[in-house]
Amino acid sequence: MEGTENTQDRHSHAFMSTARIEALADGLFSIAMTLLALNIAVPVIAPPENAAALLPRKLLDLFPAIALYAVSFVVLGIYWVAHHGQFRVIDAADRPFLWINILFMMLIAFVPFSTSLISRYPDVPLAVQTYGLTLILIGGALHLHWWYATTGFRLIPPTTPPEIIRGARNRILLAPAVCAVAIVVAFVSPLASIVMYALLPPFYIAPAALDRFVFRRERRV
Amino acid sequence: MEGTENTQDRHSHAFMSTARIEALADGLFSIAMTLLALNIAVPVIAPPENAAALLPRKLLDLFPAIALYAVSFVVLGIYWVAHHGQFRVIDAADRPFLWINILFMMLIAFVPFSTSLISRYPDVPLAVQTYGLTLILIGGALHLHWWYATTGFRLIPPTTPPEIIRGARNRILLAPAVCAVAIVVAFVSPLASIVMYALLPPFYIAPAALDRFVFRRERRV
Amino acid sequence: MEGTENTQDRHSHAFMSTARIEALADGLFSIAMTLLALNIAVPVIAPPENAAALLPRKLLDLFPAIALYAVSFVVLGIYWVAHHGQFRVIDAADRPFLWINILFMMLIAFVPFSTSLISRYPDVPLAVQTYGLTLILIGGALHLHWWYATTGFRLIPPTTPPEIIRGARNRILLAPAVCAVAIVVAFVSPLASIVMYALLPPFYIAPAALDRFVFRRERRV
Amino acid sequence: MEGTENTQDRHSHAFMSTARIEALADGLFSIAMTLLALNIAVPVIAPPENAAALLPRKLLDLFPAIALYAVSFVVLGIYWVAHHGQFRVIDAADRPFLWINILFMMLIAFVPFSTSLISRYPDVPLAVQTYGLTLILIGGALHLHWWYATTGFRLIPPTTPPEIIRGARNRILLAPAVCAVAIVVAFVSPLASIVMYALLPPFYIAPAALDRFVFRRERRV
Repeated sequence: MEGTENTQDRHSHAFMSTARIEALADGLFSIAMTLLALNIAVPVIAPPENAAALLPRKLLDLFPAIALYAVSFVVLGIYWVAHHGQFRVIDAADRPFLWINILFMMLIAFVPFSTSLISRYPDVPLAVQTYGLTLILIGGALHLHWWYATTGFRLIPPTTPPEIIRGARNRILLAPAVCAVAIVVAFVSPLASIVMYALLPPFYIAPAALDRFVFRRERRV
Repeated sequence: MEGTENTQDRHSHAFMSTARIEALADGLFSIAMTLLALNIAVPVIAPPENAAALLPRKLLDLFPAIALYAVSFVVLGIYWVAHHGQFRVIDAADRPFLWINILFMMLIAFVPFSTSLISRYPDVPLAVQTYGLTLILIGGALHLHWWYATTGFRLIPPTTPPEIIRGARNRILLAPAVCAVAIVVAFVSPLASIVMYALLPPFYIAPAALDRFVFRRERRV
Repeated sequence: MEGTENTQDRHSHAFMSTARIEALADGLFSIAMTLLALNIAVPVIAPPENAAALLPRKLLDLFPAIALYAVSFVVLGIYWVAHHGQFRVIDAADRPFLWINILFMMLIAFVPFSTSLISRYPDVPLAVQTYGLTLILIGGALHLHWWYATTGFRLIPPTTPPEIIRGARNRILLAPAVCAVAIVVAFVSPLASIVMYALLPPFYIAPAALDRFVFRRERRV
Repeated sequence: MEGTENTQDRHSHAFMSTARIEALADGLFSIAMTLLALNIAVPVIAPPENAAALLPRKLLDLFPAIALYAVSFVVLGIYWVAHHGQFRVIDAADRPFLWINILFMMLIAFVPFSTSLISRYPDVPLAVQTYGLTLILIGGALHLHWWYATTGFRLIPPTTPPEIIRGARNRILLAPAVCAVAIVVAFVSPLASIVMYALLPPFYIAPAALDRFVFRRERRV
């Protein structure tokens, strides 16, 4: 009884299907990911006769930029997976939720800049910290996204078990926590800080409780 | 009786499903939004030894560009929401309507240029006014979009209540009206004009009558 | 009888749904359209104190680039409409057809370059002719696309009336014909040639026989 | 019996529909393809009076860059077709599979850089080899993609005939094998190596066993 009422209430503010939000997010993620590669500039060698001799060294110099490309690509991958993972449970959208999504995307589209900054100044604490701050803000926006959708079962089915909601939230908060530590570490060693960002992906690649819940719900239906 | 006839007439010029138009618009919006971030250039510091000392100041100098990035991103978000909001009611498309959409997208894809211009010359009235003019033209195209679709219930269900049509139209016209004032204000104070653009989003983020109508219609079906 | 057999044959080479092709094309068109705007460079004024005085003139100098942006955007719009229009009738895809589509997209993604070229050298015949040649090649690819799909009702329903097939083909060939003339005209007057390109859109914006056919078929089903 | 159990197991780790992965891949492919064209820079001629006289020669100089644009576009087309071809059989996704996809996309987004490198230094072995290495890594990722999905019928229907799985795998491995030879050849003749890359497309454009299987399965259903 109560569940049905709740569902009606949930939909009464609905303005957009979640499909449109996901389509915009997919577009934005794929562009931000591809733009990351623009940070890796083709080396200019003058005069051209020296190209064969100097290119090996010049490509070696690109290694940090390529490594940071890979890290940022995977970090965006993590957030893409997390964003869509939430939409496996979220089944409605209202206007404030729409704007939380636009805030989230605004921060995602900022990642190529932060990557470019850290890639040019890898040994300047502030550059490394700006990168970490960007990730903290994205984590915060994703947390807000989940919090808004789940509070009072606003945009999720009333049958969602509370431990799922809690589990997903804790999972989201891990990255910002690591980044906060990395920001402090950067004062001492920017490199150690970068290594911490690079270690984020392995954790997230491992399966999570949310996966299993989504499966169980789908099997039931 | 009359309603059925009208529906047939509405579809007799139909050429494309609205889904394809929305897919193109989603792609275009997501790219324009991501390109906005390219305006924020990573500062070049020479010689590199000074990077640690000079970066804080250089990043501070980027603040106006970052603020304008946020404003333009949210402005594009407003128009994306408004464009899709219209498609919750519009359920058919004909050739002139298609071209109104292409005009609309052409203006949307122009926003990164206007943002780049205002971001480089924030204290030149003409730069601030070009930005405002772009928003006025977008508002005008969106108004034409709604006017064309709703006149004689051309591309909307004949059962759409007139107050919904009127409400959405007035809502669209608000932004151009504010921009027109901002353009005049820019002659005296470009900064005051920029503040006016930044105040547009809060209004649009608040819920609107259209939302509630869409909900009610969907509940019925 | 014969129709059914033909349908089976048509699908026996099918490899991909047309939906995937259309999704890739939508992405590519929206990016090519947005990149056109990157041709309009924000003027650099040095020293900055002169910005207020010099900007009006500098923006005026951008007028040809902005006009060419509009022309190219609309030209891409024409081809997007034509491409999707064909997919209203085409309902299957095989491997050669897939590659015709990739060829078509390769030429579409080349339009920003041609636009940039004509925009920088509007009074050099070769630049104006390169633009025209690009449009001729796109028209040729689109013609091949339609020819391959319709020959022997390969990828279209066997019930498609022959006059529809012919009508759409003639329509496609108009733009390359105009461009061929424009290329010759460019030897005498590059400007007259550009005007001819700008006159293409009005013709295509008018409704076409294909529209009406699609409607009639959909109404029947 | 066994088949049914297998299917349940296959879905028990499922986290995302394959539709979302395909949408992200479509976006990424279309952007990477369009960005390839940015490698073809509009020639700068100074002073402008000489433009008419010098442009023919300058455009001729662009020919290698345009040829490499075409090759890379078609190469990306091959991988797009192969990626989607796999998804005609794959009907589920789990987390490791998701990350294999993100790895695949990371390598795809790297192709514009490799193309730009080979395009600027076509006669430097290392540049030609970097391009080949990128294609080998993409082929490897695609092979891993297929291997992971098909091993133990993890993400494919248990009824998929083994010869289909083998056929698709061998097909994937052809490109990396050719590229490995091309990398060795580049030490002697970079140009011969580039020609080998250019010969890859014709093989893949020919129809494949997978096509026919997909058709037969769809007909049956």
